[in-house]
Amino acid sequence: MGLWFTEKQTKDFGITAKINKSLHSEQTDFQQLDMLETEEWGNMLVLDGMVMTTKKDEFVYHEMVAHVPLFTHPNPKHVLVVGGGDGGVIREVLKHKSVEKATLVEIDGKVIEYSKKYLPEIAGELDNPRVEVKVDDGFMHIAKSEKEYDVIMVDSTEPVGPAVNLFSKGFYSGISKALKDDGIFVAQTDNPWFKADLIHQVYHDVKEIFPVTKLYTANIPTYPSGLWTFTMGSKIHDPLKVKPERFFDINTKYYTPELHQASFALPKFVKDLTE
Amino acid sequence: MGLWFTEKQTKDFGITAKINKSLHSEQTDFQQLDMLETEEWGNMLVLDGMVMTTKKDEFVYHEMVAHVPLFTHPNPKHVLVVGGGDGGVIREVLKHKSVEKATLVEIDGKVIEYSKKYLPEIAGELDNPRVEVKVDDGFMHIAKSEKEYDVIMVDSTEPVGPAVNLFSKGFYSGISKALKDDGIFVAQTDNPWFKADLIHQVYHDVKEIFPVTKLYTANIPTYPSGLWTFTMGSKIHDPLKVKPERFFDINTKYYTPELHQASFALPKFVKDLTE
Amino acid sequence: MGLWFTEKQTKDFGITAKINKSLHSEQTDFQQLDMLETEEWGNMLVLDGMVMTTKKDEFVYHEMVAHVPLFTHPNPKHVLVVGGGDGGVIREVLKHKSVEKATLVEIDGKVIEYSKKYLPEIAGELDNPRVEVKVDDGFMHIAKSEKEYDVIMVDSTEPVGPAVNLFSKGFYSGISKALKDDGIFVAQTDNPWFKADLIHQVYHDVKEIFPVTKLYTANIPTYPSGLWTFTMGSKIHDPLKVKPERFFDINTKYYTPELHQASFALPKFVKDLTE
Amino acid sequence: MGLWFTEKQTKDFGITAKINKSLHSEQTDFQQLDMLETEEWGNMLVLDGMVMTTKKDEFVYHEMVAHVPLFTHPNPKHVLVVGGGDGGVIREVLKHKSVEKATLVEIDGKVIEYSKKYLPEIAGELDNPRVEVKVDDGFMHIAKSEKEYDVIMVDSTEPVGPAVNLFSKGFYSGISKALKDDGIFVAQTDNPWFKADLIHQVYHDVKEIFPVTKLYTANIPTYPSGLWTFTMGSKIHDPLKVKPERFFDINTKYYTPELHQASFALPKFVKDLTE
Repeated sequence: MGLWFTEKQTKDFGITAKINKSLHSEQTDFQQLDMLETEEWGNMLVLDGMVMTTKKDEFVYHEMVAHVPLFTHPNPKHVLVVGGGDGGVIREVLKHKSVEKATLVEIDGKVIEYSKKYLPEIAGELDNPRVEVKVDDGFMHIAKSEKEYDVIMVDSTEPVGPAVNLFSKGFYSGISKALKDDGIFVAQTDNPWFKADLIHQVYHDVKEIFPVTKLYTANIPTYPSGLWTFTMGSKIHDPLKVKPERFFDINTKYYTPELHQASFALPKFVKDLTE
Repeated sequence: MGLWFTEKQTKDFGITAKINKSLHSEQTDFQQLDMLETEEWGNMLVLDGMVMTTKKDEFVYHEMVAHVPLFTHPNPKHVLVVGGGDGGVIREVLKHKSVEKATLVEIDGKVIEYSKKYLPEIAGELDNPRVEVKVDDGFMHIAKSEKEYDVIMVDSTEPVGPAVNLFSKGFYSGISKALKDDGIFVAQTDNPWFKADLIHQVYHDVKEIFPVTKLYTANIPTYPSGLWTFTMGSKIHDPLKVKPERFFDINTKYYTPELHQASFALPKFVKDLTE
Repeated sequence: MGLWFTEKQTKDFGITAKINKSLHSEQTDFQQLDMLETEEWGNMLVLDGMVMTTKKDEFVYHEMVAHVPLFTHPNPKHVLVVGGGDGGVIREVLKHKSVEKATLVEIDGKVIEYSKKYLPEIAGELDNPRVEVKVDDGFMHIAKSEKEYDVIMVDSTEPVGPAVNLFSKGFYSGISKALKDDGIFVAQTDNPWFKADLIHQVYHDVKEIFPVTKLYTANIPTYPSGLWTFTMGSKIHDPLKVKPERFFDINTKYYTPELHQASFALPKFVKDLTE
Repeated sequence: MGLWFTEKQTKDFGITAKINKSLHSEQTDFQQLDMLETEEWGNMLVLDGMVMTTKKDEFVYHEMVAHVPLFTHPNPKHVLVVGGGDGGVIREVLKHKSVEKATLVEIDGKVIEYSKKYLPEIAGELDNPRVEVKVDDGFMHIAKSEKEYDVIMVDSTEPVGPAVNLFSKGFYSGISKALKDDGIFVAQTDNPWFKADLIHQVYHDVKEIFPVTKLYTANIPTYPSGLWTFTMGSKIHDPLKVKPERFFDINTKYYTPELHQASFALPKFVKDLTE
């Protein structure tokens, strides 16, 4: 049947995917939520018309958000995920046995509900006893926290809709306060082909607050341009100076210790954004 | 105007780009050639319905095909480019002053003609006196060559149409024969998300012929999945053991010495294809 | 959300409609059945990728299939609808009080089931006591009938899939046999812009069997070209010689007595197909 | 090649056509002009993203705009076409030997230029000695004319862009003044499926000015919904009372004397717009 989902990633360019059926469609209190069954990518979560995650390629994003900061930190115990209601980052976080408690603060409970229903491979660990799920505003949660977390991951949508203030300097200050004295934070910061200005700004905002600020990348085929950036702010620990013995074996499909290192080697035009 | 070009990169997934106008459209002796003016990517060369290169992102492919083997080789003098009629690889090759002669063997003269006309930033060096352009069958050219080249780059289309025998083991044997005793070759070998089998086969075919066989990657947003692989076969030189002093300064937008190294760190699921 | 349904009505032309959600999708024993919620047309029934009916424009087809033959016949009592599982033709047939019994023979029970569920305005009369619904092969039902019906309407899909033998001369012979001595039959016979050959053939096949054979048209915006043809075969009664007093008032949105007459005035290039 | 033109005829519905190549593309002083070579329809003229005419189906529109009023008038000598730069209406007008002079007033000279170049079958009579072509504002031309024309045809684009004031009551008054005492005018007035309000308004505006006001329809597959309306305002002559002997033979593909009559029999929901 001729049913296709098209995401215009820019005004003039996009991706298009064959749809078997739409599994769920709802205007939640925060955004338009669609769960689609695609031929190429399996079940796909779409928020406000933008692909958030798919069964086939979700591992890249979730592994790279989680393992890079968690291996950089020598002993992460308390972890906070802001956003990330699909549960993928949480699933990866739990692979670190040092983590005693992982808190998820997702503003939209519907994202959690329908990820559990239609993306069980991703959301399956949200009921793990080491996990605390809060349906709440991440910005407010951060504002109320002080020296609580070893690692904070910001797994938000684009800086439109409910996520807009998760890309502000004030938010990064709040994160710094919410982190312990050797804490680390990572945020997804979009792609350098269409959003160079955003990356430039976030990087420099974070750099004014965190002594160690670095950008790293990963290939995510269903995200705009396929090249995704993550911005890390760290109070002490340097992701490029992880001791080899720190890298214990985990089961991954994208992340490796070599790639941990390599992902910080930026294409020249991306590196230029950090200068 | 509602004019869009859609490339179905798989049966069920594709990219779609707004077109201002089609600049040229022709069934050549070898393939359907289209030159399109796009909003997002500038002028775009399309062969048999597949995006070959665009003004905006061409630098990634051309730099990564050329500089990785050319810096790996300590003193490349004679270079052969098979395919690559748009001239982008040649432009990058000429940035290496050691190169005395760069030969381009492109089967379809129309690709050269219309790249010169509509992609002058890419094709501009095809008339350089250090360059020899032959409109000929690359497979036959290789078959007739013996210990002639320091570096051979295979810049072909997908293994359909005129390029089909450029992905055969016999072709790689011919390349080995055509290379000098410390020669290096690189071929573009598609993406691991949709063409894992092809990568697996080419890698192992090349490995039976070349002592040093390695895969590296680059992000090319207009190519399927955004993650492109290149397979390098080298008789002696190891791309991961380039002496730091070998890296002279060149003007690039993607390639850096750090990225040279990092591009060989493969995502786990890609690394698995080499085992 | 960027979800669109596209029907390629020919290899090179089609319509595209924004989809809110897919309500049901199933490969039945006979065909691919999709029920879509569209913005422009309301709920839409799609079989094998072809639009069958929509909430917004269904009245044209259903009124024109039913009322033209039913007003042509002076006193229709027993009516057969072959296909038409959505129930729209039946709904119109029942507006004729002379009709004592309307039999629907639909091969695919799923079409009936999901039309009742998602197109209740169309299917609402299928449970009327004057209606008999049989889930059966229309071709076989016709073959077993003799002088039974006053009017037979063939409301089939295109001549592909389960409907292919509903466009054969043998079928029209069977229909003639199944009709009473002054019976009338009507079949939908596609559009003259893309299917001129089919219309030409059906018209002449029917003409060899029925003394009065005529083509009439209606505008159906979601059908290919917007111009739909119906072929009527009648043993005695002439649709252009209906007595004015025969036209009692019925509630319609497309059909009128004037249009009954006018719908037989064919565009020149369509008229040529009947010669 | 995957090049398709899509016209969104409404926000949520459209047509899509395979393009071989774009022949010309230009922002004129008045509108965006595109000439496309399509597979299904042959060369296609597109203004501001809307299909104006195509080689394959142009005859419907041009014949129905021209012949209905010209046969209604007993002896048309002076004819004015407002808009219609492609020349199709003029070609049909010249089939009436009574016409001594046909004046075309097209605001955009580029439409004439590129129609002559790429649609010669349509524009071929623009150089006929009985034709006067003026590149001028139709609204102003009408304002300056008094009792000059037997028949005026308004062949405009949609009421957006340069054509917006061709749908105003003031314009119809001007037309009345420009017509002789038994003059007739016809305007294309869009489709009843998506633009019911426009038809309702134009009809009633015209009716306040012209004693005989009638709507007629034709099927144009590349226009929205496939069902097009034309509004006729006539000072004396009634299009439904043409004497049979008035209909001399002309070579047409759509228009016939029977269809002339039948085209005024409106679907019920369209007829309602005239009440």
